[in-house]
Amino acid sequence: MTGTTGRRAPGRSGSGAAQDEVRRHNLSAVLTIVHRAGSITRSELTERLGLSRSTIKALVAELVALGVVTETRPAGARAGAGRPSLVVLPHEAAAHVLAADVGVDRILVGAYRLGGGFTASREAQLSGGPPTVAQVTSHLRVLVAAVLEHPGVSRVLGLGVALPAIVRSSDGFVRFAPNLRWVDEPFGAVLEQTFPGLRIVVANDSDLGALGEHLRGAGRDVDDLLYVHGDVGIGAGFVLAGRSVNGVAGYAGEVGHMVTRPDGPVCRCGVRGCWETEVGGPAVAAALGWPAGAVQELAQHLRSPLPRPERQALAEVARAVGRGVGTLVNILNPRTVILGGLLQCVYEAASEEVDAGMRAVALRACLEEVRLAGAACDPDAVLVGAAESLWLRLLEDPAASLAPPPATEQLATA
Amino acid sequence: MTGTTGRRAPGRSGSGAAQDEVRRHNLSAVLTIVHRAGSITRSELTERLGLSRSTIKALVAELVALGVVTETRPAGARAGAGRPSLVVLPHEAAAHVLAADVGVDRILVGAYRLGGGFTASREAQLSGGPPTVAQVTSHLRVLVAAVLEHPGVSRVLGLGVALPAIVRSSDGFVRFAPNLRWVDEPFGAVLEQTFPGLRIVVANDSDLGALGEHLRGAGRDVDDLLYVHGDVGIGAGFVLAGRSVNGVAGYAGEVGHMVTRPDGPVCRCGVRGCWETEVGGPAVAAALGWPAGAVQELAQHLRSPLPRPERQALAEVARAVGRGVGTLVNILNPRTVILGGLLQCVYEAASEEVDAGMRAVALRACLEEVRLAGAACDPDAVLVGAAESLWLRLLEDPAASLAPPPATEQLATA
Repeated sequence: MTGTTGRRAPGRSGSGAAQDEVRRHNLSAVLTIVHRAGSITRSELTERLGLSRSTIKALVAELVALGVVTETRPAGARAGAGRPSLVVLPHEAAAHVLAADVGVDRILVGAYRLGGGFTASREAQLSGGPPTVAQVTSHLRVLVAAVLEHPGVSRVLGLGVALPAIVRSSDGFVRFAPNLRWVDEPFGAVLEQTFPGLRIVVANDSDLGALGEHLRGAGRDVDDLLYVHGDVGIGAGFVLAGRSVNGVAGYAGEVGHMVTRPDGPVCRCGVRGCWETEVGGPAVAAALGWPAGAVQELAQHLRSPLPRPERQALAEVARAVGRGVGTLVNILNPRTVILGGLLQCVYEAASEEVDAGMRAVALRACLEEVRLAGAACDPDAVLVGAAESLWLRLLEDPAASLAPPPATEQLATA
Repeated sequence: MTGTTGRRAPGRSGSGAAQDEVRRHNLSAVLTIVHRAGSITRSELTERLGLSRSTIKALVAELVALGVVTETRPAGARAGAGRPSLVVLPHEAAAHVLAADVGVDRILVGAYRLGGGFTASREAQLSGGPPTVAQVTSHLRVLVAAVLEHPGVSRVLGLGVALPAIVRSSDGFVRFAPNLRWVDEPFGAVLEQTFPGLRIVVANDSDLGALGEHLRGAGRDVDDLLYVHGDVGIGAGFVLAGRSVNGVAGYAGEVGHMVTRPDGPVCRCGVRGCWETEVGGPAVAAALGWPAGAVQELAQHLRSPLPRPERQALAEVARAVGRGVGTLVNILNPRTVILGGLLQCVYEAASEEVDAGMRAVALRACLEEVRLAGAACDPDAVLVGAAESLWLRLLEDPAASLAPPPATEQLATA
């Protein structure tokens, strides 16, 4: 599973530094499992990590002392049936992370607890065209402050921001966001300045959607999945052999720019016939006789029963969605292809046609392995993924990241 | 790097079984490094594995006792300059593996030593159309026996076979090989029966080419590479984030079946407009006015200077190669795209056009990261990859796989 590297076994010799590293690693492994599972017995932890009962007991005690997990007796344990294994739970109030999904026409900020629970969100609708970096930052400042006012939101440790953009993973530098019209914007650095004290992650929205669905949605326990997200443009995120695959610089997944119809219209990227000219937001809108640039309303509209001419027009788009998915299935041989955003609405309104398009292109052997699904994260795969990408980092070293603050430390606020 | 999982650090507690596992793991890690590097000092091993000098000393002693490595004083070590670190080398004569590349019109079998060196090969030219499983098996029996007669080939441990096929990785079952016209053939099981005593691996030729180039060719030290192989059909193998990515059932990389020209000709797979209808062997042949089905001769021809009309016809094909590569670059954001087989010949004869085709499609950010290269393995990426895929398995547990045979044991021969 992504980010879980499992136990470290004992070796022949070791220094104190190596012992510290192993302790940190094991602490991280235990807390990561508790965070993802929600609740787990000590004996299950022992089994999953292959460590001794006494080691697990010591690790859990350390996490209890840090204030990040609690232990309870299992409900319904019978007297006299032997000592039941204690249940370990995340201490949800110990920490929150914030997640933001920045779109062309909407910004959403949510707060997620340790353990993955959702506490609160705030949203801003945008108008007047794609927002600039300064406008997005200003909206985020307001939305973050509003979320922090929620009484349930305690001790916020970081902010993860999802963008429809090619983002350099090392520093959150935005190379290209055609639909936001951003080129080479140091957005990660701007956020670091705007939100001092918060860990910042900036990443591509589809990569985060893949992570969210893998950990909390339709791709749980699936080690080979593609998450394909539709909005104005089309992007994808990959989990392959159990790990997020983002390419050498974090730019992988630009499946909207597969050339699928070389004699088709020119894409915003300048190339003729990209897949997103067939199935991106403006193409779906045009097929249904809607104005371009109303993706949220269009998504809403697709959730209600459609009049027959719209249903027929959508069928064409749905087959093109399926054909592109079929090409991806041939290239990557996934177990699950999860459709999110506007593509999820297309899929749910015309699943037979999406399926037929995929079957018209994918090889039989690959078809036998794959299933299509709509995204299942609540409320949203991208937002959940943005939160989980922060937890991945924070849970790498729980003692350093999650230790109780000194009495004088204040919450970082915007 | 593929298949190298690094050291195991010491933990808090451990059983005897865990100690054995760690010993096996560390032995594997040391021998894998020696096999790939060819020669390495003990102090470099200590540094790369993060283990103590005494642990490395003990592990190397165990490998010496197994007869699979030797130690020497470095050449040119000066007296009085302190004790130089001993150099560890693979004992090349300790074991061989056989590798076979099965094509529509040719079968090649080579023998590779521990340490990766090439010892000998034998080849059969096929005529009369694609060979059946029985014909391939019969050819392999003859070729393997011929290679085993070579005086330098000692103690053969396994046979790795590369096929232009969708192969189930678990058991070498061939799902679909359109150009061989095989469907659902239990080829792995047939080889197990034909060559008792040999470890058998059957895999897709392009996946093996990717492995070969990653470990011994143009993709050394590159953790994100695509190897795209041209023959009659087109396939690819991926190394992403340092690991081979083969999909959920081993079928990933069927890039010949990306639909790139939906109004194009019908592919052998039954779908209209697959990439290999533009750039596969018959398409290259047709562009140059050659008969289909002479891929080896065509490849040879492309290595010599072409008359102007052929050069112009090839330019069109080369641009189509580049456009398909551009789509793959957008999807996977690799550092290196390595072209092998017939595509390497096209690339070397018309590299500017391949490059221009890629630039016409790939996004700027992805383009900045990527470079194109021809395959560099000697004599052949696919064959080297087939050998290395066996070494990956054998080196997982050197004591069990490579221990000297009892005096009565005979070489497995066909």
